[in-house]
Amino acid sequence: MYKLGSLIGALALAGATSMAVAAEWQALPVNAPEPADNPTTPEKVELGKILYHDPRLSSSGTVSCASCHNVMAGGEDNRAGSVGVKAQVGGRSAPTVWNSAFNATQFWDGRAPSLEAQAKGPVTNPIEMGMKNWDDVVVRLKAIPGYSGLFAKAFTGADTITADNAAKAIAAYERTLITPNSAYDKYVNGDLKALNEQQIRGMQLFADTGCGGCHSGAGFNGSQNGQAATGMYMKFPSIENGALEAEYGFTKDAGRFEVTKNEADKHLFKVPTLRNIALTAPYFHNGKVKTLDDAINVMAKTQLGKDLTPQQMGDIAAFLGALTGEFPKQEMPRLPGYPGKTFDFE
Amino acid sequence: MYKLGSLIGALALAGATSMAVAAEWQALPVNAPEPADNPTTPEKVELGKILYHDPRLSSSGTVSCASCHNVMAGGEDNRAGSVGVKAQVGGRSAPTVWNSAFNATQFWDGRAPSLEAQAKGPVTNPIEMGMKNWDDVVVRLKAIPGYSGLFAKAFTGADTITADNAAKAIAAYERTLITPNSAYDKYVNGDLKALNEQQIRGMQLFADTGCGGCHSGAGFNGSQNGQAATGMYMKFPSIENGALEAEYGFTKDAGRFEVTKNEADKHLFKVPTLRNIALTAPYFHNGKVKTLDDAINVMAKTQLGKDLTPQQMGDIAAFLGALTGEFPKQEMPRLPGYPGKTFDFE
Repeated sequence: MYKLGSLIGALALAGATSMAVAAEWQALPVNAPEPADNPTTPEKVELGKILYHDPRLSSSGTVSCASCHNVMAGGEDNRAGSVGVKAQVGGRSAPTVWNSAFNATQFWDGRAPSLEAQAKGPVTNPIEMGMKNWDDVVVRLKAIPGYSGLFAKAFTGADTITADNAAKAIAAYERTLITPNSAYDKYVNGDLKALNEQQIRGMQLFADTGCGGCHSGAGFNGSQNGQAATGMYMKFPSIENGALEAEYGFTKDAGRFEVTKNEADKHLFKVPTLRNIALTAPYFHNGKVKTLDDAINVMAKTQLGKDLTPQQMGDIAAFLGALTGEFPKQEMPRLPGYPGKTFDFE
Repeated sequence: MYKLGSLIGALALAGATSMAVAAEWQALPVNAPEPADNPTTPEKVELGKILYHDPRLSSSGTVSCASCHNVMAGGEDNRAGSVGVKAQVGGRSAPTVWNSAFNATQFWDGRAPSLEAQAKGPVTNPIEMGMKNWDDVVVRLKAIPGYSGLFAKAFTGADTITADNAAKAIAAYERTLITPNSAYDKYVNGDLKALNEQQIRGMQLFADTGCGGCHSGAGFNGSQNGQAATGMYMKFPSIENGALEAEYGFTKDAGRFEVTKNEADKHLFKVPTLRNIALTAPYFHNGKVKTLDDAINVMAKTQLGKDLTPQQMGDIAAFLGALTGEFPKQEMPRLPGYPGKTFDFE
């Protein structure tokens, strides 16, 4: 699938374009695909950024989308389990919001087919943002004077403050959260000095070891830029390993089976992106693996049946570090006020 | 103390300047006073903004300064008690960080003489950010590669990552959190159309009722732009009121007495700023009063022995709404990464 030799060969030829190697090693697009019923507009993005950062979308008034998917950092919270309202700890590690627009499905078990569908989940999850239902969220949004103008600018119709529109705005904002121009992207776009020797060795090892069998495409997530209808799922662990299981307890979570109740889906998880993976420790669905080196070791053993040397792991880690992209500058949103009044937070 | 008639008269005269009335009604300065040992520099402000928003300064990795003093909103959390690590709820309502540079002292009981001293408190408060001590914070900061360059740019010396420097950087950032150009500021600077009739009535009532006896100066906090050494404290409630006490329980907190153990300081609280007061409900040290109208009623009864009509309260509330300033645009900080590794968060 990956032919690094031919990439380097092709790039070294005068006149070679990055298009010639795109099918094998793809740079991250700077724009995300948009669904037909939710085209990205500046007004929607602005509203979505505000909603994303507004803790009043949680029962306690203390948890926003950004609390667990921190866009100031790697797009998540660097914890095994995220902390929701009342200090409740979630059972799965928060995936990064950065480049999530390139995932074919959302959540570790892929239960949301779109960013729009995903955005609605945590708000009413009792251990995350804890709102009883979206009707209550809409009541709050309608009570905050500044939101009416923001929704009216972003959407058409008589009654624009709805759960669907809130989710659409958040999704539109998330589609702008793209980190292009990583060292890897520059390299595959023809700048052969963008990666150092160790990173190039790691890139070759990544291919040779078989990592790209699942972590394929521009997002390194098997989703082919979000165009694939179902995304890619893999059984994890694919190869039983008693020692690793004893240490990390990966199989306590049945993965996609929890959604489908289909026996064949037991322990299937969506292939997560490797973009910015150096910034999103700890790793895997349960966040039990604390370092990138250990995560590489686990993957090699449980998914590919291979034992890597420490040097090989270091090389692959160096390559994965080259997947850290450029984070766009963002202006901090201003949350509209609720002048002189107080919500009944829990 | 306040002479609104003379202000309007003075402003109406051709050639009158706002300086002529500055002693009575002061506009908010656009720059905050700086201590001699911590001059504000762009490098310090940038570092401080990052530290202020970094939840890794808390034991759980979930609480930053911004969690309870949200600069995207009114500079606090719109809750009676702030929520710290492990969902612990603080006993006093978080004061706004906006314009805190103009407070002579910090905290409701004035126990911190500077923003620098204040910044160190919550980080190691067991019910706020929960770090055991600042040494542990420094260990974390030193482990995050990106911080070494940021501290070295902001400070001089061999070992720049220290608790003192972290606090200085946070304080330097906070000194940039100023909201000038409220409708009130425009009015006292000569734009007589900046306030509507109700707001002007409220301004006069504010003066006539005696509110400005404590809420004086540009910050409406009795601190004379932070130049007064001790700031202003008032006994609250000054006038006993059984009904209000039964409803709100103000006297359960002994205020400044908790710091000084001086009997004369019982139930003394720092006079808080009224800048952006419409955005910082609920009100008072215990956050038990949910609306601005009720807060005005409480103040009139307990501090001034006056009963206001609903129209008078509405007028004063309208004036206080005119103290909502312009919030400067801020670029969202990027938190430096901890590549491939995980802190042992609680």
